[in-house]
Amino acid sequence: MKNCRITELDIEKVGEFLELPPSKISELIEKGNLKRNWDEYYDIYRFQGHAPHMEDGTVLIDHHGNFELVRGFPKIKRAMLLEPALLKNFGDISSVAVEEKMNGYNVRVIEFRGKLIAFTRSGHVCPYSTERVQNFLGPDFFRENPDLVVYGEMTGPENPYVQKEAYGIESLDIFVFDIRHKNTGEALPVNQRRELAEKYEFNQVRLFGNFNINSASSKITEIIKELGKKGREGVVIKDPAMVLQPVKYTCSESNCSDLRQAFKFYNEAGRDYLYSRVIREGFQSHEWNESEEDFRERCMRLGESILNPMKKTIGQVESGERIAEEFCIRVKNKETIFKFRDYLNRFGLYVALGEIERRGDEYVAEIKKVNKSTNDKTLAMLEGQLWS
Amino acid sequence: MKNCRITELDIEKVGEFLELPPSKISELIEKGNLKRNWDEYYDIYRFQGHAPHMEDGTVLIDHHGNFELVRGFPKIKRAMLLEPALLKNFGDISSVAVEEKMNGYNVRVIEFRGKLIAFTRSGHVCPYSTERVQNFLGPDFFRENPDLVVYGEMTGPENPYVQKEAYGIESLDIFVFDIRHKNTGEALPVNQRRELAEKYEFNQVRLFGNFNINSASSKITEIIKELGKKGREGVVIKDPAMVLQPVKYTCSESNCSDLRQAFKFYNEAGRDYLYSRVIREGFQSHEWNESEEDFRERCMRLGESILNPMKKTIGQVESGERIAEEFCIRVKNKETIFKFRDYLNRFGLYVALGEIERRGDEYVAEIKKVNKSTNDKTLAMLEGQLWS
Repeated sequence: MKNCRITELDIEKVGEFLELPPSKISELIEKGNLKRNWDEYYDIYRFQGHAPHMEDGTVLIDHHGNFELVRGFPKIKRAMLLEPALLKNFGDISSVAVEEKMNGYNVRVIEFRGKLIAFTRSGHVCPYSTERVQNFLGPDFFRENPDLVVYGEMTGPENPYVQKEAYGIESLDIFVFDIRHKNTGEALPVNQRRELAEKYEFNQVRLFGNFNINSASSKITEIIKELGKKGREGVVIKDPAMVLQPVKYTCSESNCSDLRQAFKFYNEAGRDYLYSRVIREGFQSHEWNESEEDFRERCMRLGESILNPMKKTIGQVESGERIAEEFCIRVKNKETIFKFRDYLNRFGLYVALGEIERRGDEYVAEIKKVNKSTNDKTLAMLEGQLWS
Repeated sequence: MKNCRITELDIEKVGEFLELPPSKISELIEKGNLKRNWDEYYDIYRFQGHAPHMEDGTVLIDHHGNFELVRGFPKIKRAMLLEPALLKNFGDISSVAVEEKMNGYNVRVIEFRGKLIAFTRSGHVCPYSTERVQNFLGPDFFRENPDLVVYGEMTGPENPYVQKEAYGIESLDIFVFDIRHKNTGEALPVNQRRELAEKYEFNQVRLFGNFNINSASSKITEIIKELGKKGREGVVIKDPAMVLQPVKYTCSESNCSDLRQAFKFYNEAGRDYLYSRVIREGFQSHEWNESEEDFRERCMRLGESILNPMKKTIGQVESGERIAEEFCIRVKNKETIFKFRDYLNRFGLYVALGEIERRGDEYVAEIKKVNKSTNDKTLAMLEGQLWS
């Protein structure tokens, strides 16, 4: 049995490392706020729920009694009205760096036992992202900077989380947006991070420039309108020194694209997800002081993003089809496909593997996730059941 | 002190009346599921939360140890897809009665100590509705039918709950839609109820007709389209014998009008409120098999109903105004105004009384309810705070 090889976490030593009493560590473990990984990463733990002073998804690595933290990615707050948000949050500095916010899923990458591993936002080791990241980032950076963690957005059409065609990527790629120190989570300043990433030939998110705080709002508005037209997500506005907290701001088209995806599975769609996107549209429309025509276009875009996918789903279920999320993953090692399937199953996301096709030296696997709740609800309505 | 006059509820006798053990009655009282009214209605109790076999808002009246129940109004379920819902729910009967569902608030009326009193849905005695109902319904019905309860929709522009101009009512009026027996809550058949209401010259909700089950769906669709154009709410479809449960179905325009009202106070608007209305639009659009043009009009109506009021609110707050719900009530007895204000205060709805103006032999009072949450949130965004 694998479990026999697992040594127990030394509560005393962890307490010392985290500067917390050992009793607190025991409590975190008991309450499920500090959890051990399964399978081969049995000496990696993650913080989840409300652990004190620790971002959700922070990872604790046990190197035989020596510890290391990979801090969770801090939640970036959102500007609803761009101009006042810029002035209030960056009023004390002269300029802000504006980088693209890409639409994918974010991972943290470190080297562990001689190979790279990728943590998801929640601190799990994703087997698919881990296999992929070996191709995207060279190992030299990590050997030469063992104290640093690379934060990047994984994006492209072939992944189980967020499939996007907007970036012209064939399968999947990573774009670095942050480099931070282990343990403290302290971020490198924007320029230093970009230079370092360039030196090691990492893909990076696009830097639109450093803008004077007084002109930033109009510059960013232009950028956002252009990004919207291209189906991209938005921007993150940063203090170049990375001392103040970054702020995000997104395109209307991206909000609506989220809704379109969500309302395909209307019965799974979160109420909060709908509400928050609708609210963003209201504030942006106000700030842009839109013409009657632009406003009508926004209303149309919003309404259509909700109703069109829903209508399509009902039609499909009526005609006997079942709706499902379908995506592909692409791997070098066929084993990763099954490992990844098992990984999703552990979260209760039961997926069906479709065809596995050889492409060059890689395999492309089709994966299907059935959204039972929306299918069942739609069928019930078609059979004449009443909404409560 | 008023309280000294209050006799205790006889737990044994109540238990006998409700066919529940006395210990159960004590438990209901302890848990707050059976509550005594305040002020002059100290011998009236209401069931709230989950009392066994009792609709929410059911009222228990203690006539010195003899008891009477005014059953809460059963929640009417909604058809999402009209045709299958009709066939499934009324497939065993040959025809359905279709009555108008009016947009207001529903009350139950009985005679109590020589005058009429009106209970709200939750089982409270509303002082405003109680004063008003004396003018709308004659007392003969209640004297001649002491065993019956009148269920009606109070509607018109002058009330604190739902203000509607659509019915051409100057102030407020009541429209009877149900008559039920005390204690059992058993409803009179549609025809019998309508004849009885006519005999006593009560206003009634409109009966569109009795439709054969096979043609009902197309007939109702026509009715709904017409009602929508007039800004009215929808229909309730009933088993003429009132044995099967009624089903409601509403107009797209009414959903959108709800959203327009709700998004004026976007930070108070319930996520579920938004979601449920959006979902209705999706199903109706599917069932109606709309043309591209009609679909675009629906999308536009939905988007505009959400964004327009929100945008207006932000603009108003920016220009220094504060948004508030304003309405009027009209009374014969000036005292009712203050009594009603105190009543709202008891629910934590703090309102400001505006001008009180004499009109004929009545008084019209302006009432203002400030929506602190939306005002505060909007101000915060205008000052550059970030959304979490």
